Amino acid sequence: MILTVTLNTALDLTYEVPALVPHTSHRVGHGTERPGGRGVNVARVLAALGHETVVTGFAGGPTGDRLRALLAPVPRLTDAFVATEAPTRRTLAVVATRAGDTTLFDETGAAVTSAEWTAFRERYVDLLDGAEAVALCGSLPPGVHVGAYADLVRTARSAGVPVLLDTGGEPLRRGIAARPDLVKPDADELAGLTGSREPRRATQDARRRGAHAVVTPLGPDGLLAATPDGLWRAVAPGPVHGAPRGAGDSVAAALLAGLVDDTPWPDRLSHAAALSAASTAPGAYDPELSADLLPQVRVTEESA
Amino acid sequence: MILTVTLNTALDLTYEVPALVPHTSHRVGHGTERPGGRGVNVARVLAALGHETVVTGFAGGPTGDRLRALLAPVPRLTDAFVATEAPTRRTLAVVATRAGDTTLFDETGAAVTSAEWTAFRERYVDLLDGAEAVALCGSLPPGVHVGAYADLVRTARSAGVPVLLDTGGEPLRRGIAARPDLVKPDADELAGLTGSREPRRATQDARRRGAHAVVTPLGPDGLLAATPDGLWRAVAPGPVHGAPRGAGDSVAAALLAGLVDDTPWPDRLSHAAALSAASTAPGAYDPELSADLLPQVRVTEESA
Repeated sequence: MILTVTLNTALDLTYEVPALVPHTSHRVGHGTERPGGRGVNVARVLAALGHETVVTGFAGGPTGDRLRALLAPVPRLTDAFVATEAPTRRTLAVVATRAGDTTLFDETGAAVTSAEWTAFRERYVDLLDGAEAVALCGSLPPGVHVGAYADLVRTARSAGVPVLLDTGGEPLRRGIAARPDLVKPDADELAGLTGSREPRRATQDARRRGAHAVVTPLGPDGLLAATPDGLWRAVAPGPVHGAPRGAGDSVAAALLAGLVDDTPWPDRLSHAAALSAASTAPGAYDPELSADLLPQVRVTEESA
Repeated sequence: MILTVTLNTALDLTYEVPALVPHTSHRVGHGTERPGGRGVNVARVLAALGHETVVTGFAGGPTGDRLRALLAPVPRLTDAFVATEAPTRRTLAVVATRAGDTTLFDETGAAVTSAEWTAFRERYVDLLDGAEAVALCGSLPPGVHVGAYADLVRTARSAGVPVLLDTGGEPLRRGIAARPDLVKPDADELAGLTGSREPRRATQDARRRGAHAVVTPLGPDGLLAATPDGLWRAVAPGPVHGAPRGAGDSVAAALLAGLVDDTPWPDRLSHAAALSAASTAPGAYDPELSADLLPQVRVTEESA
């Protein structure tokens, strides 16, 4: 099985409105609730791809109960969350359908206690025994040390389990030094890490900082991958209207699947680019569209 | 005790942001959850004023459970909701603190089934036995007939219980014909009912349509009351920055308290105007500010 860790889970709520007009009232139907947090989204895509997947991290309160209830019917996905005293945070996306843009409201996660962290560390070590790979995803909640991902990367490596680290800021800077097998920063996260907005330079710099491989989604410019086998770019066909919501999590899922199946880098990247372009929402994609796009992805090797 | 009916309850969530900027991300702390729906807010103010209060209507699902849990610790307030299969809707208020304005997102309530409506009707009849007054508040959820308030007004009158009807649109138009003791439409609801934006004409027209008394909040122009004892206006002192959120529900609570205690109209209106100006949020007010303002409210009798 593949393990995904989401320390800062969320119950995601989406409202659709024709247009968001500040200082007015909007009727929003029933809204759509989804289980959220990067690692949860990655797990849902992996499970849809046919991989046995286990989710862990934290969930608590009525919102945590709802999150777990929404995950319960998902085939091939097993809930191994550690319960917290504090409720799981919510996020709200207001999608303005006429303009096609989204406005986000992210609640701050409640603080994790040291007893909860200890319980999670034990759960994590237990779950690594039997994991083919592990993904450490998203932001850290209050109460969790900024070096937590570095610690979790080291623990996975000691257990011989390959690690994908998918976060930003200081947790990424510290985590990458613990030598994860793969990082997947977006352009902003990569610039924050390396100080460079030149993607080829920045991905290779990120490799030198400790990551075995670095894959960065660049929107219409496709996926750029700095790997031990070379520097690759994968571009999906068709008009690109910005990255669909959840595209990054689909990329992470495809890369993990490729890692576990040990497929060659060009194939992993084709799969990731097709799945990314076929994303319909965080944790969800259109399988038919993905299958249609896959043979049309162009993968090219670039000079370093 | 005083009974309040809220057929379209809500779990109200408030986010504070410095400014609401469409198409961007906002960090919103933990958010504030409140039990919501007009009748619930009216009941919370009545209970704070010292009245034994019973809330009924519908609540269901995780959001309904949360609503009830938030009401459980309120002194002098008793929960007599009828459980629904469908979850209680949410509302979201995004308060932009720099500009001081609010953007609202209102979910549509889920449909009430005929079995749930029947259960509510029985509960309502039981609760009227022992009620000093009843308030019928807010919009109707899907699945409830547009003439429902007219039916509930008639039932209360048959039981000898005075009725406040606080709604708008067609439910108000039908309900007022059943001769409630009091209606409290805002300026828009009153214009929708009577076709007139001239408040003195419109309040008196609303009386002729069946309401024994009509009170309309007019923002900086105070409260206008068309009563059997005459036409009155009550204006609270001080700079008025628009109506505070929940002001209308505080007015309804003060009017119900005055009805039950049979205080003279000018005193009822003074109390309502002071409480309205001291509202801090739906269902909440500042008692010290209300006490300070009360002697400063100007009540004048107007010619019809």
